[in-house]
Amino acid sequence: MTQSNPVDYPTAPPEVQSIYDDIKQTRQVDDVNNFWKYIAQHPPTLARTWDSLKEVMQPGALDPLIKELLYVAVSVTNNCGYCVASHTAAARKAGMTDEMFGELMAVVGMANETNRLAIGYRVPIDPAFE
Amino acid sequence: MTQSNPVDYPTAPPEVQSIYDDIKQTRQVDDVNNFWKYIAQHPPTLARTWDSLKEVMQPGALDPLIKELLYVAVSVTNNCGYCVASHTAAARKAGMTDEMFGELMAVVGMANETNRLAIGYRVPIDPAFE
Amino acid sequence: MTQSNPVDYPTAPPEVQSIYDDIKQTRQVDDVNNFWKYIAQHPPTLARTWDSLKEVMQPGALDPLIKELLYVAVSVTNNCGYCVASHTAAARKAGMTDEMFGELMAVVGMANETNRLAIGYRVPIDPAFE
Amino acid sequence: MTQSNPVDYPTAPPEVQSIYDDIKQTRQVDDVNNFWKYIAQHPPTLARTWDSLKEVMQPGALDPLIKELLYVAVSVTNNCGYCVASHTAAARKAGMTDEMFGELMAVVGMANETNRLAIGYRVPIDPAFE
Amino acid sequence: MTQSNPVDYPTAPPEVQSIYDDIKQTRQVDDVNNFWKYIAQHPPTLARTWDSLKEVMQPGALDPLIKELLYVAVSVTNNCGYCVASHTAAARKAGMTDEMFGELMAVVGMANETNRLAIGYRVPIDPAFE
Amino acid sequence: MTQSNPVDYPTAPPEVQSIYDDIKQTRQVDDVNNFWKYIAQHPPTLARTWDSLKEVMQPGALDPLIKELLYVAVSVTNNCGYCVASHTAAARKAGMTDEMFGELMAVVGMANETNRLAIGYRVPIDPAFE
Repeated sequence: MTQSNPVDYPTAPPEVQSIYDDIKQTRQVDDVNNFWKYIAQHPPTLARTWDSLKEVMQPGALDPLIKELLYVAVSVTNNCGYCVASHTAAARKAGMTDEMFGELMAVVGMANETNRLAIGYRVPIDPAFE
Repeated sequence: MTQSNPVDYPTAPPEVQSIYDDIKQTRQVDDVNNFWKYIAQHPPTLARTWDSLKEVMQPGALDPLIKELLYVAVSVTNNCGYCVASHTAAARKAGMTDEMFGELMAVVGMANETNRLAIGYRVPIDPAFE
Repeated sequence: MTQSNPVDYPTAPPEVQSIYDDIKQTRQVDDVNNFWKYIAQHPPTLARTWDSLKEVMQPGALDPLIKELLYVAVSVTNNCGYCVASHTAAARKAGMTDEMFGELMAVVGMANETNRLAIGYRVPIDPAFE
Repeated sequence: MTQSNPVDYPTAPPEVQSIYDDIKQTRQVDDVNNFWKYIAQHPPTLARTWDSLKEVMQPGALDPLIKELLYVAVSVTNNCGYCVASHTAAARKAGMTDEMFGELMAVVGMANETNRLAIGYRVPIDPAFE
Repeated sequence: MTQSNPVDYPTAPPEVQSIYDDIKQTRQVDDVNNFWKYIAQHPPTLARTWDSLKEVMQPGALDPLIKELLYVAVSVTNNCGYCVASHTAAARKAGMTDEMFGELMAVVGMANETNRLAIGYRVPIDPAFE
Repeated sequence: MTQSNPVDYPTAPPEVQSIYDDIKQTRQVDDVNNFWKYIAQHPPTLARTWDSLKEVMQPGALDPLIKELLYVAVSVTNNCGYCVASHTAAARKAGMTDEMFGELMAVVGMANETNRLAIGYRVPIDPAFE
């Protein structure tokens, strides 16, 4: 058996339960997503990832909706199916409308296209951008 | 000689000059970036790319600053040096502060990390996200 | 019908059967994985890929377990679902423990994050690394 | 000093010189490219890579020009600067015109865009494609 | 519910129906693929993408079969499952034989390998390619 | 001016100097690399990244040399020039020989090739790997 297994709350060690509690309280949800249950197989990764994500995704100079839109843009570019699904859901929860999603995908698509045009045409960086 | 060559305004064919004029007027700049001068070697690509970008990057449900932040996020993920330089400059021009840039990079970094955790742990999509 | 089809042993041409035999003997397995059955649709690709992989994955300055860990790291970064599944299994067979897998994923995650920080901040290479 | 060093003909071991000779004769060139001189630091990699490339790039069901166009498409998508430069040169030598290059880049750009639209919109595969 | 939904012909707004009609007539098919039905959720993206693809994929200096082979090469490199399935089908329809597909995949595989050898060995661009 | 600027020790704020001190002591070096000086423009990113990297790269079930080899494998696959240079140097410092580097690159190359073969041939996951 090589498939990794999720760690559910009742059978989780205390330090994992404590992180699950913090995720549920911070996000006001009843249960944690599969992402957390799978990486919990390595408790230091769970702890470090949650600490980092909690810090990075909090409101700051960029608000939470913008941060979720950025997360979707990266996840689509990397083709991470799980991440596209979960962060699109998170973005909608944070206020993303259908129209915003349409424009988000349009920008992501164009950026992936023009990135390759710049690379293929071997465009040198303008002095003004250095 | 295999290096592609930029098309400068004075020697450009009329349909290219006309697009350069539209870029300069739309963006209120004195000259077009190298990107446009290099893809102008294939006028249909120049015309199509400008038409698309003009439409996609205009203010809409997402404002121009957010669109430029998304462009930077994709360009960094794809590692396009030219695009990172030019769109970081465009984002600053659209109002991106140092603090916003710091948070943008933090989100892009974390998204690239957690994308791979989800992939490596083979996390199945939660029913709630389907 | 556009889906490609696997080549099973009984109906395979002799040169394919001969390679299957070598794979089974080298790896001490009863049957070859789907990977080989699918690329066997183009026998030169099967032959070349097996020759290369047999040479590259043999014990050398790096032992087989390390080579499998590297294979997982690349497959996760590229998001190849089949490859993540098959090489995680191969790594476990070669001795990868749960703790090693946890640390492997932690390094892969951090590398994907810091790669983008270096790209986004446009960090110049230190003279000491040239 | 961590920079890897090229292996030049006069100081190369005999098995490397022999491969350089075969490359020069096969391609009808006076010297081998930097690519070969750098990977020659590990002679088994030089030998295996040349054997594979010689076989894969020979005329077959696809002619050499088409194969070089495909090589450029992959190199641009992966953003390999060296590979874009060297395979664009090889494609031109094999007959690629300016117009072909323009259309090649247009297709590569659109494919990179629509790949992300399909991923972001989570488009399920049509039954006809299974 | 976060899953995006396809737009079917009978309930589509007139401007979407009109584009569907043009796709069906241009490609001589009875129905449009899921790709179009999903991006039709954002009509400006549907219109722009179809206009661009219709222009880019038409016969030119490169014929339609070569363009579809390039599309498959990019889609495989990006690991877009939907795109690999749909463009492999399109390539077969345009005349790709089993032997061509075998050679296509061989080139795509080798390009992805040698791209990384060039990057890892930090190969400098030959003066002849500048 | 859009280029980001490195933060040097003398002019750094105290919390940045403190992290630089910890990096120098932990790694037994006289100065920190450019990577740290550039991300120090956003002190929370510097602090979080160093904390994470210090934890992840410490000796554990995998020793530091293996972790550096994994870092190189990911950096090469992502084509991060800075990261390839800095982590190749770090791997050599941790004991990587020329022969190990040759085998590392051979595995990374083959993994990038076979990843695409698996994707292009749409190989289904063997039941044994689920």
